[in-house]
Amino acid sequence: MFDRRHNAVRLVEQRLLPHEFKIVSMPTYVATVAAIKTMVVRGAGAIAATAAYGLAQGCRAFRGKSIEQFERHTARVFNLIKDARPTAVDPVNAMRQVLERMKGSSSVAERQALALEAADAFADEDIAHCQAIGRHGARLIRNGTNLLTHCNAGWLAFVDVGTATAPMYAAHAAGRRFHVYCDETRPRCQGATLTAWELAQQGISHQIIADNAAGLLFERNRIDLVIVGSDRTLGRTGEVANKIGTFTKAVLAHYHKVPFYVAIPLSTLDWDLPSGREIPIEERDESEVLGAWGVTTKHRRREYVRIANPKSGALNPGFDITPAELITGIITPVGVFRPHDLWKRRAELGGPK
Amino acid sequence: MFDRRHNAVRLVEQRLLPHEFKIVSMPTYVATVAAIKTMVVRGAGAIAATAAYGLAQGCRAFRGKSIEQFERHTARVFNLIKDARPTAVDPVNAMRQVLERMKGSSSVAERQALALEAADAFADEDIAHCQAIGRHGARLIRNGTNLLTHCNAGWLAFVDVGTATAPMYAAHAAGRRFHVYCDETRPRCQGATLTAWELAQQGISHQIIADNAAGLLFERNRIDLVIVGSDRTLGRTGEVANKIGTFTKAVLAHYHKVPFYVAIPLSTLDWDLPSGREIPIEERDESEVLGAWGVTTKHRRREYVRIANPKSGALNPGFDITPAELITGIITPVGVFRPHDLWKRRAELGGPK
Repeated sequence: MFDRRHNAVRLVEQRLLPHEFKIVSMPTYVATVAAIKTMVVRGAGAIAATAAYGLAQGCRAFRGKSIEQFERHTARVFNLIKDARPTAVDPVNAMRQVLERMKGSSSVAERQALALEAADAFADEDIAHCQAIGRHGARLIRNGTNLLTHCNAGWLAFVDVGTATAPMYAAHAAGRRFHVYCDETRPRCQGATLTAWELAQQGISHQIIADNAAGLLFERNRIDLVIVGSDRTLGRTGEVANKIGTFTKAVLAHYHKVPFYVAIPLSTLDWDLPSGREIPIEERDESEVLGAWGVTTKHRRREYVRIANPKSGALNPGFDITPAELITGIITPVGVFRPHDLWKRRAELGGPK
Repeated sequence: MFDRRHNAVRLVEQRLLPHEFKIVSMPTYVATVAAIKTMVVRGAGAIAATAAYGLAQGCRAFRGKSIEQFERHTARVFNLIKDARPTAVDPVNAMRQVLERMKGSSSVAERQALALEAADAFADEDIAHCQAIGRHGARLIRNGTNLLTHCNAGWLAFVDVGTATAPMYAAHAAGRRFHVYCDETRPRCQGATLTAWELAQQGISHQIIADNAAGLLFERNRIDLVIVGSDRTLGRTGEVANKIGTFTKAVLAHYHKVPFYVAIPLSTLDWDLPSGREIPIEERDESEVLGAWGVTTKHRRREYVRIANPKSGALNPGFDITPAELITGIITPVGVFRPHDLWKRRAELGGPK
């Protein structure tokens, strides 16, 4: 993910998927910030690792000798990256790990080396976390289970096997047969593009559905289990911020008494915020709702088409908050927890004392 | 709507809206059936009036003299039209009114004339029904009300002011100021295209939202009232079949204690079926979910773009069923009823004895 020689962050250009698989290189930390903001890279773990590498990249770009100037520069890079996706907490947690490791030295050159070491360590830890989530979550999936997932919390969203999809990959590897309904996840359609692409690559049985269709499937007893990811999970309340539409699926699951699980790495936990009301909800550009990106049938060109009435505007919040009482369990790398128990069991989860 | 000289049904080509307003002519009843099936015309009242005119058109196309042959021909046309959109009941009710009127004579020529008379009467009645729905429903909308609506049950879906939108037009005409959130209504986006276009034409304040976004708006107390239409309402149970996604909005409204209303003309009432489980759910082509129709930014050409992973398929049910306990009231041309009271008050609603 990091090109040491050119001090560049290398990313999968996710906006081209599933039609094209392309690796792009971000030559400066400013380019890396733009890649996070414009969703070249998206998904909790992936933007966290990108943030860690972006911070290291920014630190390594510093040319002076003064430690005070270096610290001011580092703080500036940190804030730029943090503000690129305000709802997510993983980038902040990942960058804090980098800052923590940098305290080990007071020389600029040594701190630059430590920053990169810390980013590598974060990425390695993310891989181990995702695999552990797979082991714990796979127990929920039996032969014949019908799953619903929303958006993409798969390997594209993380460094390795993902969070919401990790249990599916582990169950599939164990030979279990099951079916996944992928919400297309308007407006950006990460379910129809990214999750469906990942599941097809793995040979897992799946169908894309309009976000509107899950209600009927619940009512007809065709969904046994929901697993989604999260962009921020509050350790104090068990509330979960995730892609817009997640809360709706939780309400539907609750109404139909279907178990609803959220899979998270530890970096998704926010131990500070006292309430979901305090999570900033990113408002994205209305063009995402007013149209869609796809490939034209004739010329196979990637194009944006305007769907909506030309004289109408749109409202486009990117995330919503699901309360703890709608969540059956939080699948973490260290086990499955009830959302109300997170605070009580914070020692196991790497939380504050 | 009907061209007597050419025995043709004239329709707004709704699939071109909002980008182009075009009237198309269906020269044969077979073309009219195809227009219903491919959704050149859609919406409960509009396909009902089209069905009535299509049946009259089919009867008028009969060239023989034998009344027995005419009756067989009429039955064939009736079934072709009925099967074009299996979830809807209005076309069947509209065509039954035509058949009823035709019993007034035993001559082929007279029956042909009576069929057209009956279709005209149905269209006139639809206009009166929609206006009465507007009067009864407008009482629910106050200054500052924030409404949510799903799909399109506007004037395009009917002959005149629509059902779900009729109260909005009436309240707007009475000078009240309110705001409408339009679900885009994937996969065909009738909310983003048709409802938004209608509301913009009327100058009513509105914003399009992704179907996923309503949950957050409910949770933030930004929706005070939901009004939707229906394709079939069961007089015996109060269950409502409507566009896929309606049930989800009803569950959300119930969870947040927000009133949820369904606006219907009397032809939407099905007095026969004993349960919503018996309503056939139309399965539409997967291409609707796997992509979208829109206008390209560069060449302003209407094109279909493939959004989803090329190797994945989709499941595309067109409707869902909302149970009576989630519905606050049914707005009809003769007043607002609790869904459980429909059967008891069937005499007022034109139901069976």
